[in-house]
Amino acid sequence: MPSFTTFKGSKDGSIKKSNTTRPDLKNDQVLLRITASGLCGTDEHYRHADMALGHEGVGIIESVGPSVKKLKVGDRVGWGYIHDSCGDCASCNSGRENTCEERDMYGTANLDQGSMGSHAIWREHFVFKIPTGVSDKEAAPLMCGGATVFNALRMYDIQPTERVGVMGVGGLGHLAIQFASKMGCDVVVFSGTESKKEEAMKLGANEFVAMKGKTELKLQKPVDILLVTTSAQPIIDWELMLPAMAANSKIFPLTVSSGNLTIPYTPIIMKGIRIQGSVVAPRGIQKQMIEFAALHQIKPILMEFPMTEEGITTAMKTLGDGKMRYRGVLIPQN
Amino acid sequence: MPSFTTFKGSKDGSIKKSNTTRPDLKNDQVLLRITASGLCGTDEHYRHADMALGHEGVGIIESVGPSVKKLKVGDRVGWGYIHDSCGDCASCNSGRENTCEERDMYGTANLDQGSMGSHAIWREHFVFKIPTGVSDKEAAPLMCGGATVFNALRMYDIQPTERVGVMGVGGLGHLAIQFASKMGCDVVVFSGTESKKEEAMKLGANEFVAMKGKTELKLQKPVDILLVTTSAQPIIDWELMLPAMAANSKIFPLTVSSGNLTIPYTPIIMKGIRIQGSVVAPRGIQKQMIEFAALHQIKPILMEFPMTEEGITTAMKTLGDGKMRYRGVLIPQN
Repeated sequence: MPSFTTFKGSKDGSIKKSNTTRPDLKNDQVLLRITASGLCGTDEHYRHADMALGHEGVGIIESVGPSVKKLKVGDRVGWGYIHDSCGDCASCNSGRENTCEERDMYGTANLDQGSMGSHAIWREHFVFKIPTGVSDKEAAPLMCGGATVFNALRMYDIQPTERVGVMGVGGLGHLAIQFASKMGCDVVVFSGTESKKEEAMKLGANEFVAMKGKTELKLQKPVDILLVTTSAQPIIDWELMLPAMAANSKIFPLTVSSGNLTIPYTPIIMKGIRIQGSVVAPRGIQKQMIEFAALHQIKPILMEFPMTEEGITTAMKTLGDGKMRYRGVLIPQN
Repeated sequence: MPSFTTFKGSKDGSIKKSNTTRPDLKNDQVLLRITASGLCGTDEHYRHADMALGHEGVGIIESVGPSVKKLKVGDRVGWGYIHDSCGDCASCNSGRENTCEERDMYGTANLDQGSMGSHAIWREHFVFKIPTGVSDKEAAPLMCGGATVFNALRMYDIQPTERVGVMGVGGLGHLAIQFASKMGCDVVVFSGTESKKEEAMKLGANEFVAMKGKTELKLQKPVDILLVTTSAQPIIDWELMLPAMAANSKIFPLTVSSGNLTIPYTPIIMKGIRIQGSVVAPRGIQKQMIEFAALHQIKPILMEFPMTEEGITTAMKTLGDGKMRYRGVLIPQN
């Protein structure tokens, strides 16, 4: 019976080292030893829950269940927000198991294990081989942050001739700039101030707009695809932003958040704008994402923390204070 | 110099018979004698403006400009909300001149003529031949109301296997039921009460839901495409409606209205729902719409009014009182 360490949230928000014991591997399950975990804003949401934290994981397979077909001991794999799906609904039938209504996902299933811990057990179909050339710690933040922005572009048929706006330069945004740029797109970045301009341009942006105090945006060209990656569902000044959107453009609000989406009605209709909900990525696109990242050497910019109670606490504080440049990664200390 | 009657709005909201004189036809213009005009909710918006009313017109061509190529005197044509476009932007280049930012459209261009009047002059490219089998008065409401619902389905790649929800049985809704049904779709109608149930089922609906007082919707199947055709941008109970939407479904808010669109955020993201702005139809789809209507004998259910100051006033009152079953049409009295 596998037994391993996890790190859990708790009522008072402190991080607790804990232990999980599970039955022996069955069917297509694999047991892996975790080598890196990303830290995502969503982890902060569950910090006060009695559940194992983390959903951007990379590890080495240590043993395999009886019906595992393609993976073997020693393989290096990553996983993200979705752990399983029903396999038989319209979403699953069309390769979009990320929207399967019976999906197992972080925060609602497998609460006894996460990517913050020593080991985890997952179905073979929901872990993904990491290509050579992408290190463990670089791969981890791609598994959710990277997948989220890549999916918005890839699933919804981005064209290399389109202009992509990235709102917010953080864990998601700094990856979105790289993906869109490598897809051939003209990338414009919207940020509060000029502070991240140099880095954004280096990552592939062609234009950078500091929004603070602006009453009108004068862009080189209108935006065809806007990825909203700010760290909370933002009070976006849509009156400022919508005139910068092209006719028939798309807006992707990517941050997981509660409350309402409120947006002026007339411009959406008159410009034929599309607001597209999108959540992480299905398996097929997850695989394309990691291959594309490897091919183009798309890498997160990391701040490293030890995978300990203290390290996770410090990482969460850094993220909460808005000081993460740009994605936190937790590394086991053994 | 052509000179003709129009019916205009006015400051106090009364309808005024007026006169327009225009220079002789130039380029690809055609002069047509109006034989029918639909009445749309948008006309009510402009009732207090000093401009000619009406944008769902049908007429017979009486003369043609020097560079008209395909139309000839005697042809029966219709036109809608859009009168012209730049011909050279990304929208125009992709057959979506309905979103051209320099489009001429009702309410902002050609304020001296409309479909309520004796005649009008339009560019050849923005009037459409009416096929045999569709009468003038049946064709008129198709030119905007029909085009609006048909475009939402056709431009955004409806599949015949999808389930279409029509919210609101009015000028747009009663045409949407017919179009979606004839496209092979399973149609479910959402209305306030049971009062329009029999008619909706006769028009092609397979399920009818009276929303009033409901706290939960138990549908035969979830909705893939929702056309919101209620007469004002509604205070929709999205908490009630969103659980009835399928994963990866689309919502089309079709009514022209002001204010904000406000919708719960999390379900949009987690279900991958798309909110798609859509406005009338480009020329290519306008032509397909009228051909499709002719082929399948899709016809508006009409209330007729005389095209006079008094007739227009009465028609608008009927519409405003919520008593139009289902589209008003104005007929010249000469």
